[in-house]
Amino acid sequence: MRAVDIIANKRAGKAHSREELEFWINGVVNGTIPDYQITAWLMAVCLKGMNFDETAILTELIAKTGTVLDLSSIADFVLDKHSSGGVGDKITLILIPLMAACGGKIAKLSGRGLGHTGGTIDKLESIKGFNTNLTIENFIEQVKKIGCAIASQTSDLAYADKKFYELRDVTATVDCLPLITSSIVSKKVASGANVIVLDVKCGDGAIVKTKDEAEKLSTIMVEVAKRLNRSITAVISSMEEPLGHNIGNALEIIESVEVLKGRGAKDLVDLTFELGSILLTKSHRTETKEEAVELMKSKIADGSALNKFRELIKAQNGDDSCIDDYKKLPKASIIEPLKAEKAGYLKKIKTYELAVACKILGAGREKKTDSIDHAVGVVLNKKVGEKIDLEEKLVDIYANDKEKLAIAEKMLAEAFVITEEPVSPEPLIYKVIE
Amino acid sequence: MRAVDIIANKRAGKAHSREELEFWINGVVNGTIPDYQITAWLMAVCLKGMNFDETAILTELIAKTGTVLDLSSIADFVLDKHSSGGVGDKITLILIPLMAACGGKIAKLSGRGLGHTGGTIDKLESIKGFNTNLTIENFIEQVKKIGCAIASQTSDLAYADKKFYELRDVTATVDCLPLITSSIVSKKVASGANVIVLDVKCGDGAIVKTKDEAEKLSTIMVEVAKRLNRSITAVISSMEEPLGHNIGNALEIIESVEVLKGRGAKDLVDLTFELGSILLTKSHRTETKEEAVELMKSKIADGSALNKFRELIKAQNGDDSCIDDYKKLPKASIIEPLKAEKAGYLKKIKTYELAVACKILGAGREKKTDSIDHAVGVVLNKKVGEKIDLEEKLVDIYANDKEKLAIAEKMLAEAFVITEEPVSPEPLIYKVIE
Repeated sequence: MRAVDIIANKRAGKAHSREELEFWINGVVNGTIPDYQITAWLMAVCLKGMNFDETAILTELIAKTGTVLDLSSIADFVLDKHSSGGVGDKITLILIPLMAACGGKIAKLSGRGLGHTGGTIDKLESIKGFNTNLTIENFIEQVKKIGCAIASQTSDLAYADKKFYELRDVTATVDCLPLITSSIVSKKVASGANVIVLDVKCGDGAIVKTKDEAEKLSTIMVEVAKRLNRSITAVISSMEEPLGHNIGNALEIIESVEVLKGRGAKDLVDLTFELGSILLTKSHRTETKEEAVELMKSKIADGSALNKFRELIKAQNGDDSCIDDYKKLPKASIIEPLKAEKAGYLKKIKTYELAVACKILGAGREKKTDSIDHAVGVVLNKKVGEKIDLEEKLVDIYANDKEKLAIAEKMLAEAFVITEEPVSPEPLIYKVIE
Repeated sequence: MRAVDIIANKRAGKAHSREELEFWINGVVNGTIPDYQITAWLMAVCLKGMNFDETAILTELIAKTGTVLDLSSIADFVLDKHSSGGVGDKITLILIPLMAACGGKIAKLSGRGLGHTGGTIDKLESIKGFNTNLTIENFIEQVKKIGCAIASQTSDLAYADKKFYELRDVTATVDCLPLITSSIVSKKVASGANVIVLDVKCGDGAIVKTKDEAEKLSTIMVEVAKRLNRSITAVISSMEEPLGHNIGNALEIIESVEVLKGRGAKDLVDLTFELGSILLTKSHRTETKEEAVELMKSKIADGSALNKFRELIKAQNGDDSCIDDYKKLPKASIIEPLKAEKAGYLKKIKTYELAVACKILGAGREKKTDSIDHAVGVVLNKKVGEKIDLEEKLVDIYANDKEKLAIAEKMLAEAFVITEEPVSPEPLIYKVIE
């Protein structure tokens, strides 16, 4: 077998055999296939596609190029949750303790923020002392003991995916459904859980812009997972406005705690319950989604979900006093309100622009090596559809630098679209694909 | 401008602007665009295509990445001829002196053989002393003085084409009409002639297999040349059997001299006259093709074409005595006939297989660095359509090595397809595109 023949087959639109893909992934990993052959193949894959079977084999082989966690000693069903990346998306922080409070076992490897969306690891590091660098042994032990753990994704997961991603980034081959699928699902497979819910964000603030595209991606991921004996359910949810009210690392910790205290924003709670009910039913912890929602509500109402978050923080050496006293979290030196210049109804929040404003304030990073400011961000006072009076506060800006504040203020003033006609917001959840 | 955006544009099927292509070719030449970006782009070009205007700009820019010969001091019209590569194709050897004998000025840069087809430079080096390494100055001077010259293509012609070709070869992106066009035509543009005839071979023994493909390629080349102010006429000719009877370096010199002596095979003479009449009419040396054919016939009949070949050999330090005495050329130690195992009509010569047999004998090379044996090859005794008796000789095999002969014999025995029904051969010339 020769690499050039494999490229020729994909160029001609043929489906790859398992043998071809094994040869290919081996060559990518051991360096016998040079980058210039890999990128020609990546472009051919983008333009000629891959069927579900091929994508599944590719995904499995990529997963095996690094550590594959074996979580079978924890329980028959180990849960996991993944988001394709949204603005203000702190659901992991809520869902992980909530699932453990409901008796589930949930083992979550997370990443840091890059580009315009935040990362769970960055958010957790707002909490003094919180350690996200767990060994695999400690990670598994903790899930066994308290039902949950959140650790930084180890760098030796799915090596080939990193190699592909670096090359895709510079060859206009990022936007390709089978490649996106193999990237996301290979890491989920390597992470070891067998009941997985994927929150596929769709809209202005997401990587996937249209419902059609989100549906296609979800279908491929679900089909690939089936072929690899994992249960993946994809929930396509709106990212036409930020989730909840708070955007920024410590600010999102606060809002997550508020949800666990029973005081969460409707969209945040609804989506948490949707994702949670899928995990609870698929792992046969409850029979119906309705039962699952009741169970989750009860675990919030009786304080056990909040308590589980406390347990999680303590297990990972964090200072849990921040749950009772938000002042223990990093706090911005400036809080500046932004007011509406006209009355009406909030029609749209330009979510991408808002996210970029937060990044400028210091909440996110452009390059992997950038440091971030955990305190800064924005707190929305209004959500899409709400009535707005003239001069009414739209948002509080949390900043630590006046120059950055000035730039962010300008961007944010452009991000809110107000109309005279009443607005009925789009549904939060478009579709569930399983 | 960023390389990744140019790749993205081609991936999306957009036509490149001149500015984009300038940025791209500059980056390829000065090394700021790495190979892995070049190959992703090459694959996108293969799968999304390029329009005539883009291909013309690409061709022009590639031509300018190396030396561009200025032949305007020679004459208003300087002629050139190029073949896409055929088996037994020695027309350059005949046409160059013939055009000069007709008063034309013809400046031919040629290559060596690679793969299954031979190269004019290798063939000429069968002649003792023949020097193909001319400086540009000497090359131009010789055309001015005797009307013709054949030199080895200098390595600094169209640098970017070499770079592209090396990468195309290993990424399954060779077979792509705009890329083939830019490769061929950029070198023709750099070679400096303005009246060019292209012999586009089509069939079993050619790189282009179908008439449809040959027609598409010819059309693109002609259109691109128009946009670059060159006259290119494409003649699509059959390569379903070798041209003439002799295949192999010294053997092809002999057959070329035979044509110049007025004793050539019909297909070889017909195609020479077709290509020659295009060059003579396009350069306004004759008004009609019929006149041109009469002129060429007269120059063969009166010995002046043969004499011009003699002059050419002497001008390039070769020993012209081989014209009168073929024994002065390298001669094979073994000449072995291959006989027909059944009677009938010759339906087909598997031209590619026959060419591979010649390469095995030593007439061609696999890698650029291989050396060749000028003496070996085959001489056909039969052409397609001819009647064959049982045990009648099909071919003489010229060899210098018994082992190689044995392998070649086996291959050749499979290469001749004989049927009981009479066969009418396909026309030699399919179409002329201008």
